[in-house]
Amino acid sequence: MSTRRVIFQPHNKEVVAADGDNLIRTAMEAGVHINASCGGAGVCGKCRVIIESGTVEGGVTEKLSPEDVSKGYRLACQTYIQGDVTVRIPVESEVDASVLNKLATPRRAARIHQVDFEELKEQGLFIPPVEKRYLELPPPSDQDRLPDVTRLISFLKAKHNEHRLVARLPVIRKIPDLLRSSGFKVTATLARPVQPGRKSHIINIEPGDTTGRNFAIAMDIGTTTVYGQLIDVISGEVLAQHGEFNGQISYGEDVLSRIVFAEKPGGLEKLHQVVIATINTVIRKIVKDSRVSLEEISSITLAGNTTMTQLLLKITPRYIRYAPYVPAATLYPPVTASNLGLELGDHVSALVYPAISSYVGGDIVAGVMGAGLYRTEEVTLYLDIGTNAEIVVGNKDWFACAACSAGPAFEGGGLQFGMRAAKGAIEDFSIDPVTLEPMLITVGNARPKGICGSGLITIVATFFELGIIDNSGKYHTDLKTPRIREHDGVWEYVLAWAEETQIERDITLNENDVDNLIRAKGAIFSGYQTLLEEVGLTLENIDKIVLAGGFGSYVDLEKAMVIGLLPEIDPEKITYIGNGSLLGCRMSSLTNRLRRDVVEVTRKMTSFELSDTPSYMHSYVASLFLPHTNIDLFPRLKARMEARRRLQP
Amino acid sequence: MSTRRVIFQPHNKEVVAADGDNLIRTAMEAGVHINASCGGAGVCGKCRVIIESGTVEGGVTEKLSPEDVSKGYRLACQTYIQGDVTVRIPVESEVDASVLNKLATPRRAARIHQVDFEELKEQGLFIPPVEKRYLELPPPSDQDRLPDVTRLISFLKAKHNEHRLVARLPVIRKIPDLLRSSGFKVTATLARPVQPGRKSHIINIEPGDTTGRNFAIAMDIGTTTVYGQLIDVISGEVLAQHGEFNGQISYGEDVLSRIVFAEKPGGLEKLHQVVIATINTVIRKIVKDSRVSLEEISSITLAGNTTMTQLLLKITPRYIRYAPYVPAATLYPPVTASNLGLELGDHVSALVYPAISSYVGGDIVAGVMGAGLYRTEEVTLYLDIGTNAEIVVGNKDWFACAACSAGPAFEGGGLQFGMRAAKGAIEDFSIDPVTLEPMLITVGNARPKGICGSGLITIVATFFELGIIDNSGKYHTDLKTPRIREHDGVWEYVLAWAEETQIERDITLNENDVDNLIRAKGAIFSGYQTLLEEVGLTLENIDKIVLAGGFGSYVDLEKAMVIGLLPEIDPEKITYIGNGSLLGCRMSSLTNRLRRDVVEVTRKMTSFELSDTPSYMHSYVASLFLPHTNIDLFPRLKARMEARRRLQP
Repeated sequence: MSTRRVIFQPHNKEVVAADGDNLIRTAMEAGVHINASCGGAGVCGKCRVIIESGTVEGGVTEKLSPEDVSKGYRLACQTYIQGDVTVRIPVESEVDASVLNKLATPRRAARIHQVDFEELKEQGLFIPPVEKRYLELPPPSDQDRLPDVTRLISFLKAKHNEHRLVARLPVIRKIPDLLRSSGFKVTATLARPVQPGRKSHIINIEPGDTTGRNFAIAMDIGTTTVYGQLIDVISGEVLAQHGEFNGQISYGEDVLSRIVFAEKPGGLEKLHQVVIATINTVIRKIVKDSRVSLEEISSITLAGNTTMTQLLLKITPRYIRYAPYVPAATLYPPVTASNLGLELGDHVSALVYPAISSYVGGDIVAGVMGAGLYRTEEVTLYLDIGTNAEIVVGNKDWFACAACSAGPAFEGGGLQFGMRAAKGAIEDFSIDPVTLEPMLITVGNARPKGICGSGLITIVATFFELGIIDNSGKYHTDLKTPRIREHDGVWEYVLAWAEETQIERDITLNENDVDNLIRAKGAIFSGYQTLLEEVGLTLENIDKIVLAGGFGSYVDLEKAMVIGLLPEIDPEKITYIGNGSLLGCRMSSLTNRLRRDVVEVTRKMTSFELSDTPSYMHSYVASLFLPHTNIDLFPRLKARMEARRRLQP
Repeated sequence: MSTRRVIFQPHNKEVVAADGDNLIRTAMEAGVHINASCGGAGVCGKCRVIIESGTVEGGVTEKLSPEDVSKGYRLACQTYIQGDVTVRIPVESEVDASVLNKLATPRRAARIHQVDFEELKEQGLFIPPVEKRYLELPPPSDQDRLPDVTRLISFLKAKHNEHRLVARLPVIRKIPDLLRSSGFKVTATLARPVQPGRKSHIINIEPGDTTGRNFAIAMDIGTTTVYGQLIDVISGEVLAQHGEFNGQISYGEDVLSRIVFAEKPGGLEKLHQVVIATINTVIRKIVKDSRVSLEEISSITLAGNTTMTQLLLKITPRYIRYAPYVPAATLYPPVTASNLGLELGDHVSALVYPAISSYVGGDIVAGVMGAGLYRTEEVTLYLDIGTNAEIVVGNKDWFACAACSAGPAFEGGGLQFGMRAAKGAIEDFSIDPVTLEPMLITVGNARPKGICGSGLITIVATFFELGIIDNSGKYHTDLKTPRIREHDGVWEYVLAWAEETQIERDITLNENDVDNLIRAKGAIFSGYQTLLEEVGLTLENIDKIVLAGGFGSYVDLEKAMVIGLLPEIDPEKITYIGNGSLLGCRMSSLTNRLRRDVVEVTRKMTSFELSDTPSYMHSYVASLFLPHTNIDLFPRLKARMEARRRLQP
């Protein structure tokens, strides 16, 4: 795919794009405003732009007259780049142009964290938990009567320098017939000790040379979804991946209702069986997709929040929901996968990620391990944001963690027009600072239906930075636009008029919606601020941020800083790891280094119950502003706002 | 029970006895001959003795006239000692008396090995594999949110100086409800690591203080019988013991036929299930008899021959019966008892004794461990004699072992009138050197029915030493007694006339019977002689002998030396341990020292296949005499025989 240069005028802003990129999305990412209120569906006809030079495809619709088209007009939302292009955005006045020129800030998404398998090897962090050895054993004779297992072990010792070996019962059961049917040519699978100096276990034996095939499974047990990956442990690659709704959903949507169900007679057993069934479905699917046989899988690593983990292991989660909220355990011993009911070979051990507390579970620990936080001097803030937000802060020497209830605003919940990031959800937004007309982009370029979490953050940040709302989230009601109005005593901004939407109602954002977001971001901001204070640090000590969970992939980092959700740090220092739980499981499948270090990490991690931490409430109240009571915590924003004030007439 | 002095005349032999002891058995043990051919049943009327002084009970029957009774005559087999007694045995002549005086040798049984629990403790060998700790934990609070397992472990660390602890899954499952229902007063069961420095496992948790109750099971899986013991691991005592026929008997009487059955489709699974069912029956019985609850049992240790062990663990024994006779494994990992199908708590690990080879199994290793051979400088000969005899020789630095097929003679099999040591079996025997009349004692003092193994040895030894048979086991046919006769071309001695028996036929011992015994003892003697030669030692290097198995409890040691079954050593140096397999399991239940040392012992033990050892055949042929081709190997017997020759006219 060739790289193309796109220049927006009169901003004189040049950005890089690719053939086939949508023009209005390119403009949005460049921070160039183009009026658009139908989400990119091509129906409002507002996003008229002039192609001054270069090649584009599409953009010619009934909304444009033949004359306009001949002048180079196109609808940006229907236009796709096909070469270097210069695009002019029509503006009402020179004032517009000059304001636009100064204000444009490009959209910044978090850098995606990549697992670099080769780098792991180079750093000596790659210590395979399971390895195979191909052996051509001498058959027994009257002069050599070694028992079968002893023969195997002696040969491994003599020819492969393998020591401290012990054979598991399934191997002892398999070995007599298998040695003889294979002509004493076999492959032994060795499970390495997590602690150096301990014994290696011979967990499987197969006929012939199977050293090229060695696989593992990583599994994230989410409250809603169970995701699995099938991993080639030789190349480190993910061969297949699949998610299924957690079958437990029928017994309660959230963690709390699952716990309540588990307290009923037979409830724990039921929830245990149901999640095992879901996991087995995922296993069957990824095994099939990757054309691997079940017998070739040597290990499985699982992680989930504390309740999901206890249900997986059939441990009552009852006391998680009663004060003082105590989980049964944090470390879980390895379990034979088939004993748990998993449809895997007898030789497979299931490794379950340890938890920290009732509300900071193995999924978070897995993310911390997967992202490598524990190996660096840099103080990292790890955020997994959903209805519940889990916060970890620390470096190789220490960790503090907490969970806080952020409410559903980040998932598009609790708003008048909130929705998940599905087709028609407003996911990106800009506003003309002069006319106050919006630029909406929706998921799937469909007519707007509602607002998702990342859209909400962008809208509120834009409103605040351009002075449409004040720092307490109230609209400036004296602005000259019909879009700002009072409805049932609450002020709101009309994002899309009824006729432009899918729902035939005006889609608006009112002050209650903004307040919801402020409370949500306030809970998280004050959460990590409190953790830092408890260990004697401040926001300035944060060197890096790692975002995990679905939320992190879409959020505009600059906007998240404007509303005061994230602290102001160089966006280059923020990475997005996606499903952290799955990442950690995958990494543990690849190297024993993680399996060893994780125990140390859980020991170093101090869990805080924020509601019991006196400074938390104080911090929380102070953060119920945009971006915060104390604007000095956000110096870059403060500087921009002062510059803007100077610009204004 | 008071100690009584019994003096036999004209021998002038004084022995110690107890009130209630049978007079003819006391005479036999003292080496005093009294004619008796009905086994002690009181029907032949031959065992007339005169009570010269002292008090006895019984002995007055219709076989004695009132006149005889008034003179002090009694039937010895019906007479019981009630005080110090002087008894006169009527003899035909002064020659008789003088011969008797010189020849009397007391019967010597092997000293019974006692497990000295206190001595173990004193020697520092007592390292309990499972211990309990009572804990009164502080309940969690808002200031103390330790997870349940962490709470337990921290408390054990702080208050009991317990380190390196890990909780097993069944404990994690149990702990949340149990802590709260018990008011946080619980007893934790800790399974200690076999290797020092490894982790202790918390395997169980019980409400309240149960530290006084901690039990283990020892189980010997015999081909014929499964024996179990329930052991109090605090006192070391055996609370209950029970044996059941191994349910596998229905599928074949001996090891070979079991292997053949196991090769059939479903055969292995069947034999596995059947022996597990037998073990469960034994467990239920001993648990009930000792008034212990199943939940209170913390461990089980099992031992059996290699085939029994492989069937127990569901490992095909197929290759044990084909050259080169290779077992699947020698060391077996600990297995969760319930996974094997044993009806014990989830927390119980089954420890299975390691084997050495296909024919020297865990039962022998257990015996070696139980008898403590591996802790001493003294070279010990360990013999477990049955149809198959297993031989171990060695000391703390080395061991050599072998199995040999002795045939069933020692179990009373393969003889004209052979039988097991049941009621009516001739178990002890003496002969009047002048009249050649016998003195028979049977099991249960019943009329004779046949000859058991220990009786056979005593009869053959007595015949040989008194010159009734020669060193090749042939009768001296010129002796003047109707009891020695030719029958169907084979010479025999009539032990009991038809009318004195239960079977209404003459019970005889013919030359074929003697030959059977010679071959059996020859196989064993040449077996250990070969092992000693292979390690560069001779019979003279044997410091101690340990006898295991049912056989050892009854055999007259001096007689066993006369026939050349045992080498001539001080009978004080011979101990009898009964069921060695069970003893080893019991000891392993009491101390981890054995569990650790056993791996070392199996490494030090070299297994010999006698049929492949060139010197064995030579040794065997030379031992097919009484006691041996080379009488110099039995110097004490040689001296006695020379003395006897000098006595004879």
